[in-house]
Amino acid sequence: MNYDLDLVPERTLKPREAGLTMVMDKGLSVREIEDLLTTSSDYMDIVKFGWATSFVTPNIQDKIKVYKDAGIPVYFGGTLFEAFTVRGQFEDYLRVLDKFGLEHAEVSDGSITLPHDEKCEYISRLAKHVKVLSEVGSKDAEKIFAPYKWIEMMQAELDAGAWKVIGEAREGGNIGLYRSSGEVRQGLVDEIIHAISPENIIWEAPQKGQQVYFVKLVGSNVNLGNIAPNELIPLETIRLGLRGDTFSTF
Amino acid sequence: MNYDLDLVPERTLKPREAGLTMVMDKGLSVREIEDLLTTSSDYMDIVKFGWATSFVTPNIQDKIKVYKDAGIPVYFGGTLFEAFTVRGQFEDYLRVLDKFGLEHAEVSDGSITLPHDEKCEYISRLAKHVKVLSEVGSKDAEKIFAPYKWIEMMQAELDAGAWKVIGEAREGGNIGLYRSSGEVRQGLVDEIIHAISPENIIWEAPQKGQQVYFVKLVGSNVNLGNIAPNELIPLETIRLGLRGDTFSTF
Amino acid sequence: MNYDLDLVPERTLKPREAGLTMVMDKGLSVREIEDLLTTSSDYMDIVKFGWATSFVTPNIQDKIKVYKDAGIPVYFGGTLFEAFTVRGQFEDYLRVLDKFGLEHAEVSDGSITLPHDEKCEYISRLAKHVKVLSEVGSKDAEKIFAPYKWIEMMQAELDAGAWKVIGEAREGGNIGLYRSSGEVRQGLVDEIIHAISPENIIWEAPQKGQQVYFVKLVGSNVNLGNIAPNELIPLETIRLGLRGDTFSTF
Repeated sequence: MNYDLDLVPERTLKPREAGLTMVMDKGLSVREIEDLLTTSSDYMDIVKFGWATSFVTPNIQDKIKVYKDAGIPVYFGGTLFEAFTVRGQFEDYLRVLDKFGLEHAEVSDGSITLPHDEKCEYISRLAKHVKVLSEVGSKDAEKIFAPYKWIEMMQAELDAGAWKVIGEAREGGNIGLYRSSGEVRQGLVDEIIHAISPENIIWEAPQKGQQVYFVKLVGSNVNLGNIAPNELIPLETIRLGLRGDTFSTF
Repeated sequence: MNYDLDLVPERTLKPREAGLTMVMDKGLSVREIEDLLTTSSDYMDIVKFGWATSFVTPNIQDKIKVYKDAGIPVYFGGTLFEAFTVRGQFEDYLRVLDKFGLEHAEVSDGSITLPHDEKCEYISRLAKHVKVLSEVGSKDAEKIFAPYKWIEMMQAELDAGAWKVIGEAREGGNIGLYRSSGEVRQGLVDEIIHAISPENIIWEAPQKGQQVYFVKLVGSNVNLGNIAPNELIPLETIRLGLRGDTFSTF
Repeated sequence: MNYDLDLVPERTLKPREAGLTMVMDKGLSVREIEDLLTTSSDYMDIVKFGWATSFVTPNIQDKIKVYKDAGIPVYFGGTLFEAFTVRGQFEDYLRVLDKFGLEHAEVSDGSITLPHDEKCEYISRLAKHVKVLSEVGSKDAEKIFAPYKWIEMMQAELDAGAWKVIGEAREGGNIGLYRSSGEVRQGLVDEIIHAISPENIIWEAPQKGQQVYFVKLVGSNVNLGNIAPNELIPLETIRLGLRGDTFSTF
């Protein structure tokens, strides 16, 4: 840090299992990534190429390399898994992971209907090759699951071999864990947090109010995801109680 | 594309008359443009220097050159045409187009009151020098036109020589085609689309929900405008049915 | 300017006491700053490293140098002053200002409770070393002050030696001068403006509607703050009556 300030909460160090930040890259250039690394590499644990953006991104091998050289793993959003699976191309999907040398993959069913035991089978199969992030929650505002259902699914997916389970929010933060206004479904979160160890969950929390909520509830070292690149420095100050919103928290 | 995925809708190729994307540049630096081109040049058909930002942008000749060298034409927003015209400086405006070697110009009356036949005369005069984009719709939330009026104006402007007509939305997407909430005026759009060939219209659609609406209504190769630079990759996935919102569309 | 346009309002030139723009840097890289300077250095009067982002920004000496070499002074957000003060580390804070060669500092009490005479004492002490920007308004939505209270505090802080007083809005523009919707508290602003000389005030106005409001009320050369880097060119067009919102103003 640039100067000494007393009583700042301690952050875990990389490689982190708790307190990790998953960054949403939805189309950065190589130079933008290099720039980002100069300011925020200590605060980036893993990068997601959002949904199926990897399909249309021309400089993808270079992008992956720049992140990897900085020690930051990359994975492709769950929608890509769904796009392959719904087309009966799961074997092709495995080849894609291999071709790009990815060590993580996401399994989700936000846009498709997948019996839960099948989803868990995919998790098991993938877990033999890579670390699996499995996402719970629909991208459809009409599909609302009861808290006990979230917990059952999360637990089953961890049992099937998922490295972390992710609570769905989308890039906008207005679905799944949240109401369409972005407001946290607090009852849901409370239930989850009493059943599943926080270290095993990554909460998608793109909006500032959502990040503040989870830092206050779980602490500085909560796992957060779908963080926009230009919000990494701000998020770190929220974690450390150095922004107005969490100033009195620590 | 980076890997093979079955049943992905076909996109038109550059130079496009349908399926084109008009990008809003409201102040990028030369290096930011270079970065953008590495990720998105295939998805950029034409760039607008928003409203009169060209007046205060110091590095404008360099910016235009970088876009042109990449085969992407640039034009100045309609508010600049209005600023010259309202001051009685239309001849000066022609000299500006010439000085910067522009091959496109926008005619609009979003901030001024211009009898419609006069607007069409400007379109005719400009059409002798450049391709004209003419914009319909006021920037004033109080000025609401009936659908038949939109159609009459659009048709007259095409007849006067406009290359494309643009449906107004502003940078925010909260006027003209949209309610102040950003919601699409669906009745209006439906009427327009049955009267004017979609290829002749560029729909300003800066918000994701608006882009999704038009891709679902018109198809992958709808013309969309006022797209922010960092939304070009995301928009391309929406066009291809590879984002949650249009996943089941194709 | 890139071409001649009649009847454009005159802007003050740097170094400005009126018409100045304070920019919010919440984590730019050195290269992003260099880029920004190529487009907007004429429109940047002073840069704030937002709240306590300076604590976690790794390349801070380089960043300050790039701004300084361009003649643009930097200061650290008021939350950092508060973080040191609440820990009884005010002397350390002075050393931080010294270490980074800063010539400006912000005093605020947005997140802490500080008797107003004590706040003024801090202003006096700091004013011996640097130019002081003092901020009025709480970051707590529940703490609402009557207009006469704002005026009393602003006047006392100017009397204590503040160079400028700042009206609080936060990065979001939804507190202090504004309702949570971002709407201006017009009665409050009207009262302030009749009591305190506009040249002595910087209005935090991150949202476009807020910038438009103040340009219409005070004129092109109003002091505005918390401007995002990519809104500097757009703001300049608003000041000059070259965007729809202020088009008919001049």
